[in-house]
Amino acid sequence: MLLDTTLRDGEQAPGVSLSADEKVDIARALDSAAVPFVEAGSACTGAGERDAISRVADLGLDATVTSFARGVRADVDLALDCGVDGVNLVVPASDRHVERKVGTDHDSVLETTVELVEYARDHGLWVEVLGEDGSRADLDFLDRLAAAAHDAGADRFCYCDTVGYGSPEHTARVVSRLAEHGPTSTHVHDDLGFAMTNVHASLRAGADLVHATVNGVGERAGNVALEEVAVALSHCYDVDCANLDELYSLAQTVARATGTPLPPNKAVVGENAFAHESGIHTDGTLKDEAMYEPYPPELVGRERRLVLGKHAGRAGVRAALDEHGVDVSDEELAQVVDRVKGLAERGKRVTDADLLTVAEDVQGRSRERRVRLVDLQATSGGGVPTASVRLAVDDEERVAAGTGNGPVDAAVEAVRTALGPDAAFQLESYHVDAISGGTDAVVTVEVELSREDRSVSVAASDADITRASVVAMVDALDRLRAPTAVADTPPTAD
Amino acid sequence: MLLDTTLRDGEQAPGVSLSADEKVDIARALDSAAVPFVEAGSACTGAGERDAISRVADLGLDATVTSFARGVRADVDLALDCGVDGVNLVVPASDRHVERKVGTDHDSVLETTVELVEYARDHGLWVEVLGEDGSRADLDFLDRLAAAAHDAGADRFCYCDTVGYGSPEHTARVVSRLAEHGPTSTHVHDDLGFAMTNVHASLRAGADLVHATVNGVGERAGNVALEEVAVALSHCYDVDCANLDELYSLAQTVARATGTPLPPNKAVVGENAFAHESGIHTDGTLKDEAMYEPYPPELVGRERRLVLGKHAGRAGVRAALDEHGVDVSDEELAQVVDRVKGLAERGKRVTDADLLTVAEDVQGRSRERRVRLVDLQATSGGGVPTASVRLAVDDEERVAAGTGNGPVDAAVEAVRTALGPDAAFQLESYHVDAISGGTDAVVTVEVELSREDRSVSVAASDADITRASVVAMVDALDRLRAPTAVADTPPTAD
Repeated sequence: MLLDTTLRDGEQAPGVSLSADEKVDIARALDSAAVPFVEAGSACTGAGERDAISRVADLGLDATVTSFARGVRADVDLALDCGVDGVNLVVPASDRHVERKVGTDHDSVLETTVELVEYARDHGLWVEVLGEDGSRADLDFLDRLAAAAHDAGADRFCYCDTVGYGSPEHTARVVSRLAEHGPTSTHVHDDLGFAMTNVHASLRAGADLVHATVNGVGERAGNVALEEVAVALSHCYDVDCANLDELYSLAQTVARATGTPLPPNKAVVGENAFAHESGIHTDGTLKDEAMYEPYPPELVGRERRLVLGKHAGRAGVRAALDEHGVDVSDEELAQVVDRVKGLAERGKRVTDADLLTVAEDVQGRSRERRVRLVDLQATSGGGVPTASVRLAVDDEERVAAGTGNGPVDAAVEAVRTALGPDAAFQLESYHVDAISGGTDAVVTVEVELSREDRSVSVAASDADITRASVVAMVDALDRLRAPTAVADTPPTAD
Repeated sequence: MLLDTTLRDGEQAPGVSLSADEKVDIARALDSAAVPFVEAGSACTGAGERDAISRVADLGLDATVTSFARGVRADVDLALDCGVDGVNLVVPASDRHVERKVGTDHDSVLETTVELVEYARDHGLWVEVLGEDGSRADLDFLDRLAAAAHDAGADRFCYCDTVGYGSPEHTARVVSRLAEHGPTSTHVHDDLGFAMTNVHASLRAGADLVHATVNGVGERAGNVALEEVAVALSHCYDVDCANLDELYSLAQTVARATGTPLPPNKAVVGENAFAHESGIHTDGTLKDEAMYEPYPPELVGRERRLVLGKHAGRAGVRAALDEHGVDVSDEELAQVVDRVKGLAERGKRVTDADLLTVAEDVQGRSRERRVRLVDLQATSGGGVPTASVRLAVDDEERVAAGTGNGPVDAAVEAVRTALGPDAAFQLESYHVDAISGGTDAVVTVEVELSREDRSVSVAASDADITRASVVAMVDALDRLRAPTAVADTPPTAD
């Protein structure tokens, strides 16, 4: 079983465009994941695209590097100019495409296909013929097309469900006919949510190469997702078609390059794929890691996460408190669990800071805030974005100003300056959910700060993104500040 | 074929928590979409949850409203208190769950199940028994469990692939055994990307009710997506199990309530599901709408979108220019297409404003900017967020200030004031992609503004979110401003 990653189809997703550098990075990551075929692009698209394809072809990858080519000789020539190993030659297959789109007829398509396959083979190319819109094609014509392609020397013929139209039964019927003529690939889209189902049907019917895209990014609802095919085949059938432990880093590379964030509930690579929230799930997972997981996260280069929410239970909350060195009695634990659920029921994400505040309150510990935001002022829009903060650090007031790329950046710099060089902290992550709706939407900023070996997550919401960012950061600093550190830290501005 | 939406499982997604109002909204939307079963929550979770379930039960929906209940009498009692029509009674099925999680044995599970089914039936409840982790259960025990449940009077038994573990072949084998005893449901997760495939296998094997969640939101990789099941069954098998034209508004309701944005390439409901970018696709779609669509977007309450990018072709670009009333010669068109591809190849999303600027440049039209941002100042952080702008509107300078919930909101208000009441425009959409990475990340703001019957999309990027927002908005206003409108508009501040 072989995998082909079609960068070309991934890039046809609206709004997605990869630079040559990004294509090179993705191609390298695919090679590390041992994906044997990389469709680097479509040489006819333009000079920039050809430069990118050439650079991928020159990397000396283990993978066979190909270019997409329409059924015209000029496209094959452009692919040859890029130095690729092969072409994915697309010719119209359905009557809708043959007649209405291209304005030709069956016999001409057959003739052109044979001619181009021979031409490409004569020039040393590996050739795969794709019958576009094959799922809506007349089956007898598609069958003749596959036979003609193989007879002319094509390495493979590809069943294309170009518009994500076919049922699994239809897919199986067509692929089994095509596979009689020689090696058969399958290229499916997810418009009906049937992409994986149709891959499964195709492989059962005799296909042995799957066109996929990383994260399923592609035209409309996208293509079948490479990482899902690889994990499902390994898990269910012991078929290895990629290095699974490279899949997560590959997914992140593609998410960054395409500007398409990974959906939290995306199989294999989503943020929540190995996160457990509900009480019974967390409890079970703490007793036995496999209790609520089909396969260990490490298999795909990831880690397990436990998250607190309205379904929180005693075991999960105790484990989370342990991580922050907080010990509670059984009675206190019950109260903390109740309050955590209450927070979540009001629609709030429960961060480390929320949990610790609840625990302090339940235990009647009157924790003195060590770092507090007294005042914040940020100016931006034109000139140098500037901010000033007034912090109360223990009993001392610290005032500092900072500049930055924007008001948030300036305010964070002011906070750093006010705390002084010894209060070293790392901003491990800074996240703002996508904002839509209006300019007055409330924005939630989540930060994770670390200091030495402790880390803490805090969220803050405000219609003012600058204020939300600084409040979250100061709350996190307050949590991280160990008693001894304060005396060591000289004030730097006053 | 019946659908059951499990709000409970959707809410078990880490970070997702629905308020009672949100549950009521979603339940109403599900009822409009004619979904026959709504699992409103888990009554044992807490008082807030019970309040929400009671409110859904009291709506008088056509749907059967149920509560999840663990295999203990107290949970059934709590469900009864909420006034639901039925319970989804979960009992452990796999040895891992029977022995290691619950610490019991097969016979006790059977005994408890029979007792609770009878108890629930005696209290007038519709009863579905779920064998938790059924995909990893001993098949003979699962078979006995299903038989016992039916014998005790349960309305259904549900095959649960709790951890998204089973292959389609395994699913078919198990479900066909279970279906011999009576009506059988299927509850699958997407950890392997096989959720839809396993639903397909379950229905083929005799199941006739599918547990699903809207948008597939749920624990880990989530559940099978309701909208995909409904559309696929209708499209491939002419089986109607929901009002398809309500699916998109339902998806949006759930995305808002759960704070989980729809992935752009999500089947049926993603932003790109009916968008066409590449040249051959756009060209084909303009010739025949069904060329690159499996079913018309209107079927699911949506519209088609054409988008420009690096695969742009002549037909798509001409159609986009037409929309803005710009006429170009064939030669000019070729140049515009080249330049649009060039923009996209550098990784830029091509907005209406980009296209119009390119066309003006190609045609040598020296368009005078009508509205220009001269100065912007925004102050925020504490007190009332305030902003001022200085705009050049034709040859006139306009200065105004505004306040708002945050600096962006204040700046937009200042722009509105500067332009005066006659320059009425609608902010159709305001979007900022999720920000991660750091506080100095460059933020891209996309706005769509409309005025009378024209609309225009513009994007602007800056590390300062306020500046990016105002630049995008002023550019859009500049594009929308018709010559006659200027004279009509009195300056309101100077």
